[in-house]
Amino acid sequence: MTIVLDAFGGDKAPLCNLKGAVLAHRELGVDVILTGDTAVLRELAKKEQLPLDGIELLEADGVMDMHAEPTALLKQYRNSSMGVAFDVLCDGRADAFVSAGSTGAIVVGGTMLVKRIKGVKRPAIGSLLPAPKRSYMLMDMGANAECRPEMLCQFGVLASVYLSEVEGRKNPTIGLLNIGTEDTKGGELQKKAYELLSQSGLNFVGNVESREMPKGVCDAVITDGFTGNIALKLIEGTAMTLFGMIKGVLKKNPINQLAAGLLKKDLYALKQTMDSSEIGGAALLGVRKAVIKAHGSSDEVAIKNAIRQAVNMVKSGAIETMSRALADGVNEES
Amino acid sequence: MTIVLDAFGGDKAPLCNLKGAVLAHRELGVDVILTGDTAVLRELAKKEQLPLDGIELLEADGVMDMHAEPTALLKQYRNSSMGVAFDVLCDGRADAFVSAGSTGAIVVGGTMLVKRIKGVKRPAIGSLLPAPKRSYMLMDMGANAECRPEMLCQFGVLASVYLSEVEGRKNPTIGLLNIGTEDTKGGELQKKAYELLSQSGLNFVGNVESREMPKGVCDAVITDGFTGNIALKLIEGTAMTLFGMIKGVLKKNPINQLAAGLLKKDLYALKQTMDSSEIGGAALLGVRKAVIKAHGSSDEVAIKNAIRQAVNMVKSGAIETMSRALADGVNEES
Repeated sequence: MTIVLDAFGGDKAPLCNLKGAVLAHRELGVDVILTGDTAVLRELAKKEQLPLDGIELLEADGVMDMHAEPTALLKQYRNSSMGVAFDVLCDGRADAFVSAGSTGAIVVGGTMLVKRIKGVKRPAIGSLLPAPKRSYMLMDMGANAECRPEMLCQFGVLASVYLSEVEGRKNPTIGLLNIGTEDTKGGELQKKAYELLSQSGLNFVGNVESREMPKGVCDAVITDGFTGNIALKLIEGTAMTLFGMIKGVLKKNPINQLAAGLLKKDLYALKQTMDSSEIGGAALLGVRKAVIKAHGSSDEVAIKNAIRQAVNMVKSGAIETMSRALADGVNEES
Repeated sequence: MTIVLDAFGGDKAPLCNLKGAVLAHRELGVDVILTGDTAVLRELAKKEQLPLDGIELLEADGVMDMHAEPTALLKQYRNSSMGVAFDVLCDGRADAFVSAGSTGAIVVGGTMLVKRIKGVKRPAIGSLLPAPKRSYMLMDMGANAECRPEMLCQFGVLASVYLSEVEGRKNPTIGLLNIGTEDTKGGELQKKAYELLSQSGLNFVGNVESREMPKGVCDAVITDGFTGNIALKLIEGTAMTLFGMIKGVLKKNPINQLAAGLLKKDLYALKQTMDSSEIGGAALLGVRKAVIKAHGSSDEVAIKNAIRQAVNMVKSGAIETMSRALADGVNEES
């Protein structure tokens, strides 16, 4: 299996990306195509004494600017490390794509270059978030700021297939993020999506309130990309603010400092869990190939894990299952 | 000044409501009209030896069911403790209204019985949320699941007046909750609201991402009622989940338990701060009189504080200022 990795996407690129590719080849036995400035990559490999077995370096022109409009990927950044990585995926030289670059650009590339699975109205981003007992998928996390009810229902199908095929969860429970549990709650979008999800044949457990969501009350929480993005970042922001306040308590006086010393290791581990607000990378679901968005701040282990996620997605045949699951909707307006 | 209090709204009614009214009369010097089953209230006062100076008991028939449709307030619950309290407010026997009952019903009563300030499209709920340095107002927290851009702009005006008049904040900063800081972010609602807020003359600081919101980066964060309600409950849910996980760390082994003993008081105080996810009650802004929604779980101190908030709102003349601020919009479609 071959995975294409945008060597220059992410805050710690290209070094961590290169190291992650080396780790992935060694531990997972996959070949990796790295796109970007090959001279820089070759120089880095030499300096860091990284073996390039199973790794192909492919020339690309520049890096997609994180602050550029996502659609710029199709124009001035068409030959960037991300643009070339999409080419490699599209022409079949690689089985899956991984980038830690701009989420918006990945959505654009996935939708316009890789293209949608037949019948999919809009691809969406799903990622696993940590919960005390079992992680849960939040989807859409920001690909579609505005959604129609049918889109939310499809997100449910895509998330359900992903969780059962890639994560091995049997008959995953699907909830709709809403401002109350009754089916009359929310706006028109939620009311209609509730109805569609109820009739979808999915293991739909109804509305889920945001107060319950962090507990991990169902396997996937479905919402529009605006609300999903607000929710994702609010969990992160709330956790970080709270940890900041706890830090204040721990430093308050010598007695607290003593106690802090005793708890240091365990509290640090807990903070780490919540810091990486997403577990692994985010998957762009609804496109014809495996497209994984790694965290912008990915180190080599995170890159390797994102590659692993891409490998699992390919091996599972999840995309073929999604295609079959959505075949009924092919003739609908898309 | 006279405040009318729904004696039977809330989880700890009527006892805590009665005690709260007694406290308010004693500490704030206001008269309180309590609506509900007066025989029960009189019996309680006798049993608890609570003096009824400055307190009038007014008969009402039953209590608005928390799970009933909010509009039921206008029908089968018209003579409930909340319905009668609204009558007392509307006919001028009281200057302000406080209830710990159903938020939805309070919005319905405020809008349909108290009525909107001239020019107000939709009243909305704003409440102060805790932040490390200074609290911030989130608005709308759930009165309007679906909003138009002009409504968000008005929420900004209402929040700004409330914060300056009632909270004494000079030229309060107003942010728009969005999925990115650039003015092109979000859906049509956010883009258009951004434009309107920019032209509003408010101290508009642009888009605020949910990751930044809990830090208290501006005085008020404006959003639609769906997103606001999701955000409010998600902060609460995330904080509670985190505290649960921290509790696990503190109980993990004898050493951690020792440390926990040392930190107990300070951590408990921190948890209390976040538990009462809102500071004081929530104000229904945009209606012609002061309408305060106290927490459902209010004890007597919380009830007294909600009464204090109502008093401050009346004294400040905030509603008159809101009327003047919105006068320009009177001829618009509402």
